[in-house]
Amino acid sequence: MNTLRFTTQTSSNGVRERDFTVGDVPGVLWSPESGPDHAPVVLMGHGGGLHKKTPALKARAVEAVTTWGFTVVAIDAPGHGERPRSPEDDQARDDMRQAMTTGDVKGFKSVSIDYTLSLAERAVPEWRATLDALQHLPEIGAETPIAYGGGISMGTAIGMPLTATDPRISAAIFGGGFFVYPELLEAARRITVPIQFLLPWDDEYVDRSDTLGLFDAFASTEKTLHAKPGDHRRIRWTGVDQEFLPRHLGVI
Amino acid sequence: MNTLRFTTQTSSNGVRERDFTVGDVPGVLWSPESGPDHAPVVLMGHGGGLHKKTPALKARAVEAVTTWGFTVVAIDAPGHGERPRSPEDDQARDDMRQAMTTGDVKGFKSVSIDYTLSLAERAVPEWRATLDALQHLPEIGAETPIAYGGGISMGTAIGMPLTATDPRISAAIFGGGFFVYPELLEAARRITVPIQFLLPWDDEYVDRSDTLGLFDAFASTEKTLHAKPGDHRRIRWTGVDQEFLPRHLGVI
Repeated sequence: MNTLRFTTQTSSNGVRERDFTVGDVPGVLWSPESGPDHAPVVLMGHGGGLHKKTPALKARAVEAVTTWGFTVVAIDAPGHGERPRSPEDDQARDDMRQAMTTGDVKGFKSVSIDYTLSLAERAVPEWRATLDALQHLPEIGAETPIAYGGGISMGTAIGMPLTATDPRISAAIFGGGFFVYPELLEAARRITVPIQFLLPWDDEYVDRSDTLGLFDAFASTEKTLHAKPGDHRRIRWTGVDQEFLPRHLGVI
Repeated sequence: MNTLRFTTQTSSNGVRERDFTVGDVPGVLWSPESGPDHAPVVLMGHGGGLHKKTPALKARAVEAVTTWGFTVVAIDAPGHGERPRSPEDDQARDDMRQAMTTGDVKGFKSVSIDYTLSLAERAVPEWRATLDALQHLPEIGAETPIAYGGGISMGTAIGMPLTATDPRISAAIFGGGFFVYPELLEAARRITVPIQFLLPWDDEYVDRSDTLGLFDAFASTEKTLHAKPGDHRRIRWTGVDQEFLPRHLGVI
């Protein structure tokens, strides 16, 4: 098993930010500067083309730490952030850019699905290895409740198969903003933990009914859909249930 | 103009409950036992076959009073609660019961739509007269913000044309659980105030896509859909944004 190695540490406004690696995978861990051990852990996934410290993700992480005392973890997806891209990753990005430039929506969808699926297949074992390593930290341990805290788009395309596979995850926030493919519907049917699902009502590329079908497919008896007008890149998810994670992580 | 006459008054756990009439329409007003005048007003509509003090409605009203200090108002819809039924109302109820007994879904839908539309046409001017009378009470006045606080089903079928028509209503909670007919889509297109919309994901009779189309039709730039599994009669709307009304009524 790969152990977790901390590399750098900074602190700001009561939040400690520690970069780490597990094997080749760089990650970041945000936690309260002071507080009890075994705080619930929230995993956050970044969107396509972004990275583990993307401002929107970091802002949500800092809020989760300061409001609820959570430990928040993010890692760079394969070929994202500090990580090298494979020739196949470069090719996929070029193909997507090309398809968008020429207005080839069908081609864009096809390349995007193949690329996302490939990323998810690589990212799930990386997340699981990260969880293994995190649970060996005395401050976290094996009994601390863990949730997948989002977000939408690629963060969900990776988080769904992770949640379907790893029984340590006891609740999850997912959301739309990506093309729905059969493997995702399959993952949804295997997921039984409480789900909060964020649906961008007017996504630029993704058909609304496909994403509604994905929500429908979750086996969870407790699942709530929240939809707001706009594309997933522009929506601020205010006015949704902010206590979903605290409730399911036993904080309230 | 009809004035508002209080008939009975009781108090319990800090909440004052006063029955009233405006013309022939009986209503109830819940408010804090003590507190400042001009507390924001929330209008609540009961479901089909129910009445202004239906336990679920009253529970929501009492919570709104005790948590936020709101004044909450409910009136009996035409032919409901303490109000006499017209021969047409009796006929419609008989026809609906008959259609359900024989499994005539199409007939049930048709009678239900006609009856709901007839109720809404009568109820909207009654609500407006009630608002006129309420605004003449010194404790409320003409400047107090007013929201339509739900609920789903018939409460929405009446609340939507009311909100489309009456500029005094500055925010509204609506929800599914009734057949969508063209007049409702028309009302939605005229509504521009912030909307919270509750969608029963598995309503027994109502097609999900019809209700999604209704949400889509609202002209409001600020609208949020919340969906939970189940039929509208059985869902507990926990885990949705509980601060929607306080936010739009200027309390937080």
